[in-house]
Amino acid sequence: MSEGLPLPRVPGPPTLEDVACTAGVSRATVSRVINGIRNVDLAIQERVQQAIILTGYVPNQAARSLVTRRAGSIALIVSGAGGEENLFPHQVFADPFFGRVVGGVVGFLRPLGIYPTLMFADTPETRDQVIAYLRRGNADGAILVSISTEDTLPQLLADASLPAVLFARPVRPIPITYVDVAHRTGGKLAADHLVARGRRRLATISGPLDVPASRSRLAGFQDAMAVHGHPYLPSAEGNFTLPSGEVAMERLLAEHPDLDGVFAANDLMAQGALLVLRQHGRRVPDDVAVVGFDDSSAALACRPPLTTVRHPVEDMAAEMGRLLLAHIEQPDHPVTSRIFEPTLVIRESA
Amino acid sequence: MSEGLPLPRVPGPPTLEDVACTAGVSRATVSRVINGIRNVDLAIQERVQQAIILTGYVPNQAARSLVTRRAGSIALIVSGAGGEENLFPHQVFADPFFGRVVGGVVGFLRPLGIYPTLMFADTPETRDQVIAYLRRGNADGAILVSISTEDTLPQLLADASLPAVLFARPVRPIPITYVDVAHRTGGKLAADHLVARGRRRLATISGPLDVPASRSRLAGFQDAMAVHGHPYLPSAEGNFTLPSGEVAMERLLAEHPDLDGVFAANDLMAQGALLVLRQHGRRVPDDVAVVGFDDSSAALACRPPLTTVRHPVEDMAAEMGRLLLAHIEQPDHPVTSRIFEPTLVIRESA
Repeated sequence: MSEGLPLPRVPGPPTLEDVACTAGVSRATVSRVINGIRNVDLAIQERVQQAIILTGYVPNQAARSLVTRRAGSIALIVSGAGGEENLFPHQVFADPFFGRVVGGVVGFLRPLGIYPTLMFADTPETRDQVIAYLRRGNADGAILVSISTEDTLPQLLADASLPAVLFARPVRPIPITYVDVAHRTGGKLAADHLVARGRRRLATISGPLDVPASRSRLAGFQDAMAVHGHPYLPSAEGNFTLPSGEVAMERLLAEHPDLDGVFAANDLMAQGALLVLRQHGRRVPDDVAVVGFDDSSAALACRPPLTTVRHPVEDMAAEMGRLLLAHIEQPDHPVTSRIFEPTLVIRESA
Repeated sequence: MSEGLPLPRVPGPPTLEDVACTAGVSRATVSRVINGIRNVDLAIQERVQQAIILTGYVPNQAARSLVTRRAGSIALIVSGAGGEENLFPHQVFADPFFGRVVGGVVGFLRPLGIYPTLMFADTPETRDQVIAYLRRGNADGAILVSISTEDTLPQLLADASLPAVLFARPVRPIPITYVDVAHRTGGKLAADHLVARGRRRLATISGPLDVPASRSRLAGFQDAMAVHGHPYLPSAEGNFTLPSGEVAMERLLAEHPDLDGVFAANDLMAQGALLVLRQHGRRVPDDVAVVGFDDSSAALACRPPLTTVRHPVEDMAAEMGRLLLAHIEQPDHPVTSRIFEPTLVIRESA
């Protein structure tokens, strides 16, 4: 091709033929490359890709979907249960942790040329819409972040045998693939760190105890403290919001005014605890050390910046993407789970 | 149809014919209803919709797209300029204001059965990907939230004549439809409220002054204060993050220790200001009153809860959706703008 590549000679948008001509291959080969069919020689794939760029050819996505029977997109669903429908998306993003999860999923899929469709489901109607959307083939599969124990969408997805991956283990046993973090290990990391910092009168603010993750974080913390010789720990239950952390901290301080360390089961509740400790004139970490959980942007918004147990969210999001693509490619791919190890991020609060 | 509706009689998925038979209309009519073509009698539309539910017919989206030449979906794009690519989605959602915008858009589109594809664009490559995605017809149009003055995506969309609506006026004049809030009015609301509360020694923390919204909020505040007889106001420039609010507040306090009121140009910077005021032992609102801007969830996370200028984000998001659909339906729809009035939400900080 030393003479230079031919350009389309007729007016109008470039066609598949133009690409084939430019690349010096058959129409069928161009079609195979465009549709991502695997057994095409890599050098030829590159020639075709370059010819697509040179000609400015734009494949018709709808035609492509008909051939491949693939939408080429996935749904990213945040689901809850009931409540005030119009407030739900607002509530979700009020916790920056979910923004980190969404960002992680988008960041993994982007280099693959896959852009997720964002859906919220928090009522029976919206759950039905999600299932219908997937059944119609508008998306090839779903990544689901379910934030309520009452949410039935994981079960509906499993019942419909739709390719899906959950963020976090489902509340009830369901044959569905998920990724999660080792919550117990996270609780242990917090306990070990507070003890290493010389704290002996610890208390904890747990998440809602109907959520498996909350129970595991609490159990991990309690078990590790028992190993350190502390059989009993005061605890107060929050609901993962900042105000609930304030209420819990007020109660713990009233009942145990001499406490010198607190483990809160997420960053927002830790942020609430810090505000209350400051109101009561307790210096952090000098008087009371505080450890959170998540490492969301809330941890950096805390004063002092929060020592916290870090979810490796980006790695988890990438694994969700990989697992979902595996389920889409192989409909008989076995249901599986992947558990990630958390790490402790040491800042100034403990 | 008193005999009850016939059900499909052969095994296999229900077909368009089954729907037509059940509804007692022609295939063509069913097709028109499915494809959203307008001139079908409302009663017949309802009969067809009911027949679709009864038969369990699932239209093939790809086939439907080929007929309508519509993807039936839109792209929701958050775009910036350069920076650390992998951190971009994370940075975006670190400000809960963007979560509110995303939630507003999703909330408006959901009842229409439209789910946006979420895309981030912050590099030349990702901007090209967005344009190619829209050109290929993977989405019928775009709602764009551009968070950097250096972002070239609004211009690229306008150049390509793709249906698009911007959240907020573009930095440079571009023939593109946008919705925005009356930022000057917002600044005035803050000034009038602080003066009404008896504050006389005011200062302001502005956003980055290369952003039109920042300049307008500042100008609105300054102009209103001039009307109240205050010709000069100390100000410090932040970048809309919490730490920048802290730095600005430290500087203002050092230079003007007797200040008794502060207007911060967004809630996160106001949150930072509150933390610094508390560190310096200033009571809010008794010693210093503070007003923010946005009414994001950060305003509720402040202690005391923040008095702030509210963006009517849900209304703005709905209008973006309506305008985008108009541009998609009528390719010659004129470029337009809609400016919404902000309101003051009075809580405890001022």
